[in-house]
Amino acid sequence: MESIKNRRTIRKYTSQDIPDSLLNELLEEAFRAPTMGNMQLYSVIVTRDSARKERIAPFHFNQPMVTSAPVVLTFCADFNRFCQWCRQRNANPGYDNFLSFLNAASDTLLVTQNFCTLAEAAGLGTCYLGTTLYSAGGLIEALELPKLVVPIATITVGYPDECPAQPERLPIEGLIHQETYRAYGEQDIDRIYAEKEAMPENRHFVEVNRTENLAQVFTDYRYTKAANEEISKVLLETLRQQGFLD
Amino acid sequence: MESIKNRRTIRKYTSQDIPDSLLNELLEEAFRAPTMGNMQLYSVIVTRDSARKERIAPFHFNQPMVTSAPVVLTFCADFNRFCQWCRQRNANPGYDNFLSFLNAASDTLLVTQNFCTLAEAAGLGTCYLGTTLYSAGGLIEALELPKLVVPIATITVGYPDECPAQPERLPIEGLIHQETYRAYGEQDIDRIYAEKEAMPENRHFVEVNRTENLAQVFTDYRYTKAANEEISKVLLETLRQQGFLD
Repeated sequence: MESIKNRRTIRKYTSQDIPDSLLNELLEEAFRAPTMGNMQLYSVIVTRDSARKERIAPFHFNQPMVTSAPVVLTFCADFNRFCQWCRQRNANPGYDNFLSFLNAASDTLLVTQNFCTLAEAAGLGTCYLGTTLYSAGGLIEALELPKLVVPIATITVGYPDECPAQPERLPIEGLIHQETYRAYGEQDIDRIYAEKEAMPENRHFVEVNRTENLAQVFTDYRYTKAANEEISKVLLETLRQQGFLD
Repeated sequence: MESIKNRRTIRKYTSQDIPDSLLNELLEEAFRAPTMGNMQLYSVIVTRDSARKERIAPFHFNQPMVTSAPVVLTFCADFNRFCQWCRQRNANPGYDNFLSFLNAASDTLLVTQNFCTLAEAAGLGTCYLGTTLYSAGGLIEALELPKLVVPIATITVGYPDECPAQPERLPIEGLIHQETYRAYGEQDIDRIYAEKEAMPENRHFVEVNRTENLAQVFTDYRYTKAANEEISKVLLETLRQQGFLD
């Protein structure tokens, strides 16, 4: 499928708006994704209002796409709607637990990816913001999410105003295992990461960060142990507050 | 996109095999999905061997697709490969925590959905098994997954030998919120679930289970509080064993 094969993240958009009719059509098709027991454990929050984009931007580390994209979509794991239905039918819902959170989050991510595929095939550009889980608590407040609803993924969408180079990917032999997981030897790792490490832009990152190599750019600057541990703590607390953990 | 719009889960497959070349091509394209910091935090285990299918079938509640499909794919969250690269480069990886698990699981699910889209567009049928997280520990053993690797999603794939009716979906107005989450009133819930509750096959489930209504089929039979709580406990313990929780 050409649109998937040629896919790249789009961070700059033209001023052209996305009509509600198109957006709803794409979402409706996206909702065809597989879903646990056909429970559809997700909700999508559509942000078009500039003031609200300004409000959520800091939770996405003020990445400029949040305020410049015509539409920001927050895909949320949602057991609230389902539980409300259960209670209204005199059924006793038991979905305030960790498994249910992961089931809802899975449903949500399948729909998110389906939406991106459909949007891109329709000529739109998307950017997946990896920041959503980092600031889940702030987004819950800004988007007024009730208990049993947790934001999982945020996508900015608009008509592309750039065509960046496609990022490299690891060779597939490094990602696929036949029958059982094949432990990686030292030479396997060297081979799998060789092309990535040799890319001019990755060498540039090493230079500007003054690290010994690319791996240290990740561990020492981009995704540090201290930040990951702190955010993990906050995230578990958020899941507790939203009712998904004891 | 017609293949997404007309999508249905396929559980019966012809005896036609899927060549490795096609499978690898589809996976390579699927790996174009967005990934956190381009870290590609996933691995795919390909199961073709009958004996191994028999071995993992019980972890999927012996659903017949596992042994009858030519290919079973287990998509795993994988921080093992990345951490091994870091250690080999004298970088100190800090990815043995809950946030990193969710980041890797997100990467994994985006690739899983991308694969399903591509496979279906190529004329294959897929079934997403919602059982993977239920039996993660057993699958870890059977597929020999090391620490920092957790199975997230399993897909059976083959050439379709059935064309079942497309399952219903909730009306999109029940799933989309403008700007902020709109609390559901009692009448909203009745309206959103009306079509689902009226479907003959859903009425049939109510009848055979002798419940008052469809919601009780979910809470009392399909996804019970007791089972969810028990599995949540085991799953958290599995994450701990795999090194993603303190």
